Amino acid sequence: MIRIGIDVGGTGLKAGAVNEKGLILSKVSCPTRAERPYQAVIQDMAGLARSAAVQAGCDWDKVASVGVGIPGVENAATGIVPFCTNLGWHQVPLRDTLSELLQKGVRVGNDATVAALAEHVAGAAAGTQSSVLVTLGTGVGGGVILDGRPFVGCHGVATEIGHLIVKMDGILCSCGNRGCWERYASATALIREGRELARKQPEGMIARQVEGDLEAITAKVVIDCAKAGDPGAVALFEQYAYWVAVGLANLINAYDPEVILLGGGVSAAGDFLLEAVRARLPELVFFKTMPYARVELARLGNDAGIIGAAMLY
Amino acid sequence: MIRIGIDVGGTGLKAGAVNEKGLILSKVSCPTRAERPYQAVIQDMAGLARSAAVQAGCDWDKVASVGVGIPGVENAATGIVPFCTNLGWHQVPLRDTLSELLQKGVRVGNDATVAALAEHVAGAAAGTQSSVLVTLGTGVGGGVILDGRPFVGCHGVATEIGHLIVKMDGILCSCGNRGCWERYASATALIREGRELARKQPEGMIARQVEGDLEAITAKVVIDCAKAGDPGAVALFEQYAYWVAVGLANLINAYDPEVILLGGGVSAAGDFLLEAVRARLPELVFFKTMPYARVELARLGNDAGIIGAAMLY
Repeated sequence: MIRIGIDVGGTGLKAGAVNEKGLILSKVSCPTRAERPYQAVIQDMAGLARSAAVQAGCDWDKVASVGVGIPGVENAATGIVPFCTNLGWHQVPLRDTLSELLQKGVRVGNDATVAALAEHVAGAAAGTQSSVLVTLGTGVGGGVILDGRPFVGCHGVATEIGHLIVKMDGILCSCGNRGCWERYASATALIREGRELARKQPEGMIARQVEGDLEAITAKVVIDCAKAGDPGAVALFEQYAYWVAVGLANLINAYDPEVILLGGGVSAAGDFLLEAVRARLPELVFFKTMPYARVELARLGNDAGIIGAAMLY
Repeated sequence: MIRIGIDVGGTGLKAGAVNEKGLILSKVSCPTRAERPYQAVIQDMAGLARSAAVQAGCDWDKVASVGVGIPGVENAATGIVPFCTNLGWHQVPLRDTLSELLQKGVRVGNDATVAALAEHVAGAAAGTQSSVLVTLGTGVGGGVILDGRPFVGCHGVATEIGHLIVKMDGILCSCGNRGCWERYASATALIREGRELARKQPEGMIARQVEGDLEAITAKVVIDCAKAGDPGAVALFEQYAYWVAVGLANLINAYDPEVILLGGGVSAAGDFLLEAVRARLPELVFFKTMPYARVELARLGNDAGIIGAAMLY
């Protein structure tokens, strides 16, 4: 059983043929060129889908389904994408347009939800009943799998978990609210705090690492300095791990999943991040004597988009 | 089809026979006397269950099931209640003990979850796919219904929604964390803020209402003064409505239910509360142009415990 997964990003389109186990058999891609009319972009998706099948040696007739992950949401009742900022889309009938071009059933999902589904089927959450993927990147995204299925809620607006408010009247977020979790748990937050620290401590390791060029501070610089034991960077990273853990405690309180996976750029810190976050959780969970979600690293990286999209059936 | 629902509280036990539509046909009660061994308390539950059936004119053989709502959680795998503060219980095998006494299948649920189920079956959320009940009382409790079933998570620790952290480093909560939603959205919060205001403004309406006796300030006093237009009380209540709305926005973001119901003592403020909360939500929800949960008042009040317990099958 071969399924096609399409991963739609603001800069690139990717498609792959995926088998039942979530293994990618072929992978093709092209630039999105999102400035074009949506019809042209969808046409390219259709072309990629057919190429992916060909490259996997699979007749189009044998393709069981097509799934698409988008950086936005779909109104599941109508199949219309109401808006998609990265693509400049408004009211785009993605599902039906692509379905007609491909003569196949098409399902559309949010890219973060799709990545969570991929980890659930073929990654670090395989074999679990329920899982939450948290991507610690420029922002904080994520997807929730309950009883083996993507959870999107009643109107399709669930699980923008990076925008759960963890600090009322806190830092202003791009969404207009104050105190969203992603203002504290994203790579952006690590960089902001790293720059702030370097400003205050021009002799500290972070400032020295970038030779005083604060703009050159990345999440990796901050993490590397913390790993190297610089006291300022260690304290900063511990604060960051606490901020991540507060949000994870909220996710545990809300979803009580079997496992929470950390993905996204910051998760490249690996066990260093994992141990720091795990250490803060016991004090934060509500039921101190009950078991709660394990926290692990996500495993599929960039392939999660294609695999998860293919698993949307 | 008659089912028995048992509502276990720290001071009283209640039981009722409930029909398929969630209508209570009989109601019996007795004091909990939680200082006794758990076996004696469970014996009383069994006695009440049988009495409720008798009073409803229903042979015990015809009773389809028995459900119990407790102020705690059950480990669903073992049927054991690991702890239940209000009852002083530790590791109590409630399900099996009661099942043996009654020779019936028994299900146990958290009291707030059970109340949410009652509203879903026979109250303000009837006919919806998913709903969240939020009880604004001494604390903030609640229950979540997804696809018509109580949602309790993988380890049974989901949905202590009053303890979602909305203000990191905020007010200390009885659970040990800082900034839990219930520190801001409970009746207790309204009273705290009311007392604070009366201290600062001894000539304000709240202080006058209680003739300077700050201990006499209740949530109702604060709400009545806000309704009467006292500027201090109005500002306080608007702040409170904002705090409630922040938590509701988080619930929408996490669960995206069809409806959110407000219950508990503060919900006696009715439309005055509802309108104040609804007014703050549009700015707080993430997807500004997508539909989201309606906010309504819960309807079943104290009967929700019996009805919902009976619906646990």
